[in-house]
Amino acid sequence: MPATGPIAFAGSPIDRADHIRVDDDALAGLMDWRAKVLALDGLLPQIDDMGGLVWGNLADVPQEAELVFLGMMDDKAHFAAVPDGGDTGPAFAMPRAWQAIQQLSPQDLAIYGGARSLVDWHARHQFCAKCGGKTKLAKGGWQRNCSFDGGCGAQHFPRTDPVTIMLVENNGKLLLGRQPRFPARAFSALAGFVEPGETIEEAVAREVHEEAGLRVHDVEYIATQPWPFPSQLMIGCYSKTDETEITLDVEELEEARWFTREEVQHAMDTIGSEEGPFNAPPPAAIAHSLLKWWLEKEGA
Amino acid sequence: MPATGPIAFAGSPIDRADHIRVDDDALAGLMDWRAKVLALDGLLPQIDDMGGLVWGNLADVPQEAELVFLGMMDDKAHFAAVPDGGDTGPAFAMPRAWQAIQQLSPQDLAIYGGARSLVDWHARHQFCAKCGGKTKLAKGGWQRNCSFDGGCGAQHFPRTDPVTIMLVENNGKLLLGRQPRFPARAFSALAGFVEPGETIEEAVAREVHEEAGLRVHDVEYIATQPWPFPSQLMIGCYSKTDETEITLDVEELEEARWFTREEVQHAMDTIGSEEGPFNAPPPAAIAHSLLKWWLEKEGA
Repeated sequence: MPATGPIAFAGSPIDRADHIRVDDDALAGLMDWRAKVLALDGLLPQIDDMGGLVWGNLADVPQEAELVFLGMMDDKAHFAAVPDGGDTGPAFAMPRAWQAIQQLSPQDLAIYGGARSLVDWHARHQFCAKCGGKTKLAKGGWQRNCSFDGGCGAQHFPRTDPVTIMLVENNGKLLLGRQPRFPARAFSALAGFVEPGETIEEAVAREVHEEAGLRVHDVEYIATQPWPFPSQLMIGCYSKTDETEITLDVEELEEARWFTREEVQHAMDTIGSEEGPFNAPPPAAIAHSLLKWWLEKEGA
Repeated sequence: MPATGPIAFAGSPIDRADHIRVDDDALAGLMDWRAKVLALDGLLPQIDDMGGLVWGNLADVPQEAELVFLGMMDDKAHFAAVPDGGDTGPAFAMPRAWQAIQQLSPQDLAIYGGARSLVDWHARHQFCAKCGGKTKLAKGGWQRNCSFDGGCGAQHFPRTDPVTIMLVENNGKLLLGRQPRFPARAFSALAGFVEPGETIEEAVAREVHEEAGLRVHDVEYIATQPWPFPSQLMIGCYSKTDETEITLDVEELEEARWFTREEVQHAMDTIGSEEGPFNAPPPAAIAHSLLKWWLEKEGA
């Protein structure tokens, strides 16, 4: 299979050290002057002059802050503190987050993405969905318990939402669409959440039919990406259709069109400029990796 | 690629009719005497003499019940009512659920599974995780809003948790493990939740290393299954290792062993009996489908 190239937000060098999460004593023993704490401004990373993530220590964090154990790196425990508020908006509506994405090294991006998803989840889950009581952080931040007086005792776990994102091909042409909220001239792969009661392949077929009125077959898994706005597992797929006539779901898409290999190649060569036939997704998005994969496959 | 055979809980014949969910008038227009409501006993299905799901109508449901729109089938709207309580336990600890799984047709099983995940989610999410206020059902049951007086206005969506479940092969032998809670003699594929900040492939590698101390490579996606106890997306993968020495995580696994092709074949031929070398996972589990796929691949 041709390569997608590196996937942004993947490849974190942190060892999640699961055995430490479940061991309160081991965790407490790591929370001393050697521990590193990710410097965040709300949910945004602080970035140093070299373009790297800034790490502080436990003394930098308010005593009442909730701390998430990210894992071990260079023999040191790494943490992130839960900020006051979360944010479920899309990345492209956050210029400062987007700027950070483009500045950080692949490894720092992966560390930041994982930490952001986790602390955002804690910020938005201070209460128990089952009984409405206050929850508190447990297992180094990989769980929240409804364990205050009078709580129901429910356990809650960080959430990761599987989303399918798919290339649809008909006879050498690729279907791409634009959502009303996209930047000017931007087209990308269609996408949608996997719902309870369906497989990845069923979700791909349903989404393409809902959004573009096309029936697909031969759905193939290509690659995944963890996407931290707020916490999706983007499942990249490739599919084929024998149909060409698009019936647009105007609630979801402003436009959807077929693009030739040459058009996709031209757009990928001119990202961010006004030159190409459309504005292709940037390298941080898995849609970019999928288009790269497709061009390589078609070129072979 | 060899086939896995049919995947249990997949292949629902219901059209999810997404466009109706978002259209309050259309939804209200379908809620009349023609509408079908899935007969549930708590979270368990009611099954008729022919082994099929029992469907009632809206008159059978208490007026205050929350209704989830499952979708359209045979030109009729199909609903399920939210029961009083949810249940996050494993299926094999629920003898009546397990009995139903073995009795229902593949199509009914898929309908029941999707409905169960949804109504269970509603039952366990009556409150807003962000502010602790009461939530109410919206968009035909595909959303809950914190929209009572004084609520924060947060929107909540049904949850689906991606879980990797993986075959690990070394030189024609397969790694299978048993959790302490498994039925007697049962061995199955290792499995674990995908965490924020990792790809499917990274989750597979981390889980196998955590639970068995082995480093895997060449992780390959095989198939997915929606699993409704309570709502997982089981992502079935195949991987290879060059290592043989197992270091067990005794918190997660009671035992893990290498099995030959002949042993796996014998176990698959003698499921539920005392005869084979171990008790292989039943057809309802994706682990069964993965073992079937592997045997077919090895046989080729």
